Amino acid sequence: MAALVLQSDFGHGDGAVSAMYGVAQGVSEDLRVYDLTHEIPQYDIWEASYRLIQTVGYWPKGTVFVSVVDPGVGSTRRSIGVKTRDGHYIITPDNGTLTHIKRMVGIQEARIIDETTNRLAGSGESYTFHGRDIYAYTGARLASGVITFEQVGPQVDVDSVIQLPVVEPVREKDSVSGTIDVLDVRFGSLWTNISRELFLGLGLTHGSRVEVTISKDSRILYKNIMTYAKSFADVNVGEPLLYVNSLDCLAVAINQGSFSKAYNIGTGNAWRIQLRKAPRIIYE
Amino acid sequence: MAALVLQSDFGHGDGAVSAMYGVAQGVSEDLRVYDLTHEIPQYDIWEASYRLIQTVGYWPKGTVFVSVVDPGVGSTRRSIGVKTRDGHYIITPDNGTLTHIKRMVGIQEARIIDETTNRLAGSGESYTFHGRDIYAYTGARLASGVITFEQVGPQVDVDSVIQLPVVEPVREKDSVSGTIDVLDVRFGSLWTNISRELFLGLGLTHGSRVEVTISKDSRILYKNIMTYAKSFADVNVGEPLLYVNSLDCLAVAINQGSFSKAYNIGTGNAWRIQLRKAPRIIYE
Amino acid sequence: MAALVLQSDFGHGDGAVSAMYGVAQGVSEDLRVYDLTHEIPQYDIWEASYRLIQTVGYWPKGTVFVSVVDPGVGSTRRSIGVKTRDGHYIITPDNGTLTHIKRMVGIQEARIIDETTNRLAGSGESYTFHGRDIYAYTGARLASGVITFEQVGPQVDVDSVIQLPVVEPVREKDSVSGTIDVLDVRFGSLWTNISRELFLGLGLTHGSRVEVTISKDSRILYKNIMTYAKSFADVNVGEPLLYVNSLDCLAVAINQGSFSKAYNIGTGNAWRIQLRKAPRIIYE
Repeated sequence: MAALVLQSDFGHGDGAVSAMYGVAQGVSEDLRVYDLTHEIPQYDIWEASYRLIQTVGYWPKGTVFVSVVDPGVGSTRRSIGVKTRDGHYIITPDNGTLTHIKRMVGIQEARIIDETTNRLAGSGESYTFHGRDIYAYTGARLASGVITFEQVGPQVDVDSVIQLPVVEPVREKDSVSGTIDVLDVRFGSLWTNISRELFLGLGLTHGSRVEVTISKDSRILYKNIMTYAKSFADVNVGEPLLYVNSLDCLAVAINQGSFSKAYNIGTGNAWRIQLRKAPRIIYE
Repeated sequence: MAALVLQSDFGHGDGAVSAMYGVAQGVSEDLRVYDLTHEIPQYDIWEASYRLIQTVGYWPKGTVFVSVVDPGVGSTRRSIGVKTRDGHYIITPDNGTLTHIKRMVGIQEARIIDETTNRLAGSGESYTFHGRDIYAYTGARLASGVITFEQVGPQVDVDSVIQLPVVEPVREKDSVSGTIDVLDVRFGSLWTNISRELFLGLGLTHGSRVEVTISKDSRILYKNIMTYAKSFADVNVGEPLLYVNSLDCLAVAINQGSFSKAYNIGTGNAWRIQLRKAPRIIYE
Repeated sequence: MAALVLQSDFGHGDGAVSAMYGVAQGVSEDLRVYDLTHEIPQYDIWEASYRLIQTVGYWPKGTVFVSVVDPGVGSTRRSIGVKTRDGHYIITPDNGTLTHIKRMVGIQEARIIDETTNRLAGSGESYTFHGRDIYAYTGARLASGVITFEQVGPQVDVDSVIQLPVVEPVREKDSVSGTIDVLDVRFGSLWTNISRELFLGLGLTHGSRVEVTISKDSRILYKNIMTYAKSFADVNVGEPLLYVNSLDCLAVAINQGSFSKAYNIGTGNAWRIQLRKAPRIIYE
């Protein structure tokens, strides 16, 4: 029996997450249920997508994920289940939540949830809590083997799975540019979409000095030189650094401080970051 | 073996919840332990009661709940275990935590916890952490079958189980009135005690316009007309709506906003809400 | 198979904790994984140490704890696994996280983690997430029996395990003095390092009046007389009290209030507290 892993923007303040657990246990008391996170900012589909790509690959193949960030609950948005190319399953509203998984891992097969069978009995009058009545219920049935992936519902074209707009990182002559995709919430690091591979094309190595420029719209909000470090311990406490994060992309932090708070840096496609080899500064 | 589900006002900031888990695992390592929520506002018995009614019914029959919101720890308040009419068990201080369960589901049998047997060995000198030493311990013993429900302790009259005062919703000629019982914490919706059934007696259907009046004490704090919607997607982003929540009661929200923050609305018996069919407005 | 219990300063806002769970499930899908807390203030090794002593003893012998508060990730700080004198295992960076366990429970055996075997395959390029790649992975292997404690790595002298500086409580003629070690986060109580035994040497009993003096550096910040109570219910709501906490040490609280907020009291070795029998006050 596979594990079931739940993600949402519900928080832990009320009984919503526990009701999903209860429904899952009602499907099978042997089912192991875990959390990804329930602290996704409300309605933030982008971050839900990012947390999936950050986490799914560390779970065993066959694990079933349920992600419910669903501003369109009750609209015509589809409810889908997908199988990734790496063999994980994800049950979610089809609203962009699969953006990163589709691009970076790939979706092998997608199915529309057939609500005539995959809906908690007696929940027909509730139009607001599909997380419990449809997504957790269907995920639990799939994880525990009550239904096969085929029985989730009719197959649809993988290309039809909705993606949010993504800005690709670009290599220029002596720099790379990308976006600030997300924050490491608790430590205030900026996680960019610039891969280690793309960055290393600049010919830099651990210990190199790098000029980091952060802009929003056309305004420069930060421009400074810092070390490309192997890890935080390579710089002083309070010193900024550039490093490779756990997604194998470049990230910016202050050792034991919060870069995002220090400089009021946010996330999204409007937040651009450029990395280039630091110029030599010659005093004459 | 039944599952054990824990609720408290302890938060997750220290080791208190984990100590309860450890005690439960010490009773039986096969026991499955889960959370309802540990974010109940400190000492807020009413909200503890509400979160139980919101959640218990979604768990399999036989599940054992432990709820520890216990401002009277060390006083003469009783420690009880009850079996609900739906076949769930709840272990808790008898301080009003069972208010909603007693009224809306019904208690079939109530027992006083016999602390001579149902108390963690060696915990006799601790007078402040009954959540760990008595409630989690007794709940784990019951869930894992170490004791039967009868062995929780001597039976008492169900009528003696303490209830907090409740204001009943009332139907007047062309309106229904009730209280704002609780907030959907993260989304800022107001959950009222007005049932769908009572509300539909007004002859309204999805799409109807409803006049919503919110008052505290005798002061009106909000009065406006909104749509009775099937779900959030039926109104524009930023628009208020009236809908049926996951407890089958009427709720008020702003689509993708926070109603409670927008208008500074709180909860409790002093917060009254009236719903009536919107008047026709005729300009002459 | 033993349980695995995780502690960190990662919070629940992103996928970091879930990735550790996934790695553990990848080691063995039968492994039961739980949390101690992930809300340790960032980089606060002292508090991590305190939460371990507060919690470990309530879990069954053989339970494996992983604690990752690791400001020195990537430095030369050692990664170790220890077996306590009570038969629990703890996997952690060797940075002081074991201070209280070493002093109050005792470490029976310590081993350096051999990263040539005890490191997640393919994680060699990640220098920032040892919590996932080394600690959770090694802890899961130990808990599930894939490796023995000996296979964690080479044994080292228990004396070499790093401890943070600790100020011992002292008994003077008619008073005891100690430090404020930690807060009960959610309720704002102050937990001191003064044991019940040391305190009772003053000849006080429940109901005695005690003079409590709190100072920081040489400045007195609080001085008042309160009751040594058996539990919170022995004083009025809003009244301060002195009581024995769940670690069998003296603590100071306001019944249903927050002492730490009321008087801006913090924690650490600079925060001293003195308890003495209240003087008789005679008006003449």
